[in-house]
Amino acid sequence: MINHLCVIGVGLIGGSLALALKKSGYVKQVTGMGRSLENLQKAEELGVIDQYETDYAKAISQADMVFVAVPIGAMPAVFKKIEPHLRKHTIVTDGGSAKHTIIDAASEELGVKVNQFIPGHPIAGTEKSGAEAAFDSLYSDRRVILTPLEENSLEDVKKVRKMWEKAGAEVDEMGARHHDLVLAGTSHLPHVLAFALVDCLNNVDDVDEIFKYAAGGFRDFTRIASSDPVMWRDICVNNSEAILAMMQNYQQDIDNLKKAIQNSDSDELLKIFSNAKKARDTFCM
Amino acid sequence: MINHLCVIGVGLIGGSLALALKKSGYVKQVTGMGRSLENLQKAEELGVIDQYETDYAKAISQADMVFVAVPIGAMPAVFKKIEPHLRKHTIVTDGGSAKHTIIDAASEELGVKVNQFIPGHPIAGTEKSGAEAAFDSLYSDRRVILTPLEENSLEDVKKVRKMWEKAGAEVDEMGARHHDLVLAGTSHLPHVLAFALVDCLNNVDDVDEIFKYAAGGFRDFTRIASSDPVMWRDICVNNSEAILAMMQNYQQDIDNLKKAIQNSDSDELLKIFSNAKKARDTFCM
Repeated sequence: MINHLCVIGVGLIGGSLALALKKSGYVKQVTGMGRSLENLQKAEELGVIDQYETDYAKAISQADMVFVAVPIGAMPAVFKKIEPHLRKHTIVTDGGSAKHTIIDAASEELGVKVNQFIPGHPIAGTEKSGAEAAFDSLYSDRRVILTPLEENSLEDVKKVRKMWEKAGAEVDEMGARHHDLVLAGTSHLPHVLAFALVDCLNNVDDVDEIFKYAAGGFRDFTRIASSDPVMWRDICVNNSEAILAMMQNYQQDIDNLKKAIQNSDSDELLKIFSNAKKARDTFCM
Repeated sequence: MINHLCVIGVGLIGGSLALALKKSGYVKQVTGMGRSLENLQKAEELGVIDQYETDYAKAISQADMVFVAVPIGAMPAVFKKIEPHLRKHTIVTDGGSAKHTIIDAASEELGVKVNQFIPGHPIAGTEKSGAEAAFDSLYSDRRVILTPLEENSLEDVKKVRKMWEKAGAEVDEMGARHHDLVLAGTSHLPHVLAFALVDCLNNVDDVDEIFKYAAGGFRDFTRIASSDPVMWRDICVNNSEAILAMMQNYQQDIDNLKKAIQNSDSDELLKIFSNAKKARDTFCM
């Protein structure tokens, strides 16, 4: 049971954790922190948080668990601000989608208190953002990856694991670099490709007509291009190495397909499409 | 009112038209034709068609309207087989996603009877295929593009338009080459990109783990990679010029993004992502 949870950044990710833990009865009190007073007020109105604070000293000094759910680029400043107010038993965790640079920032800003920071990443989300987008079942049957540090105590890791389980998620642990590579493939690269496609079509003449004739497949394919641009800018900057490696891999596939289309190579096209369909049908049942 | 509709290729596209017209009471009788006896039997069982024929002479000589809904690569052979049995008043239309090569094939195989062929393309579909995938509301509030020929009579074009309207769709007309370019952007290119991504990840080590941590965004993004590989091979071969032009455009966007990620160019990344989000939110409400 968490007595006092402080959520820094009460958007889709932070707000949904608060709602899920309230629903399961695993948290007594939730305080919200964030840059937008309007968003915090809305979060309070909607019952996502019990109250909000605009002062880090007040918010953090009462908390048993701090969940940092701001875009990655804002995390170093948040770590710096919470550090002086962290009590000994307080645990800090986060929801960032690229772990190794967040860990570097936490080491830098939290100093010796970095042992209280358990890096985490819930593999869940929608293209929506803000407190209004939060809902209590976002993490139901979804996966959360923790990438614990050598400095962490087993007990603290267990507490974060338990919190996510109480929010409905299944929790795994792996190394931060490995996490970053896996996520580059299944999440970061697809987002980059979707943003690029919409931007590309948006620059074509007759853009209105182009979108007018877009069907359901296009809507699904580009849904992630409606995601928060700041969050995705930060992910690209903070996981550039793995994303560039995945883009390199992908470019080979695109070049092969281009060549096959140029040469009307029906066999090669059918082979690639059939392999992809088979893989997708197998893994995304 | 259509007295007798013959659907050649009773899959998602052909079967859904039959079901929609039956529901709206706009067709008296539907005969199915196709290569798979098993699929035709299933279609009859499910009430998608009233009966099936395995003989073109019987099927076509009774029909008032023939809907060709086979993969594009199979269309020339179908046109050749139906030509001898087409009565003077019978209209032929199709559901192919790339119009100009279909029109060439129809001119070649139907000869003077090409005036009875009204090329069409319903902008609708799912990633599923076969008669079982058909449903009567597939075309509700979706768009159908007709690309009429100079040889077509206005009356025949009207009849095809009316048929699609009775199936719930909104009908537009445009030139075949223009259609092919618009669809290359919003449909063909996204399919190629999705097939390529799944194929790419499928070739990564630890492929099971990669897919294990795929979230909802990935599922949406790659849904179209579960589409029928034969259909998409044929589209790529038959609309190669427009698809390659779109791939070329897209490559510029990808190269820009790659450079921005390499240089940690936050401003450029934010600009591209924000533009894309804005366009997607505006056009795909």
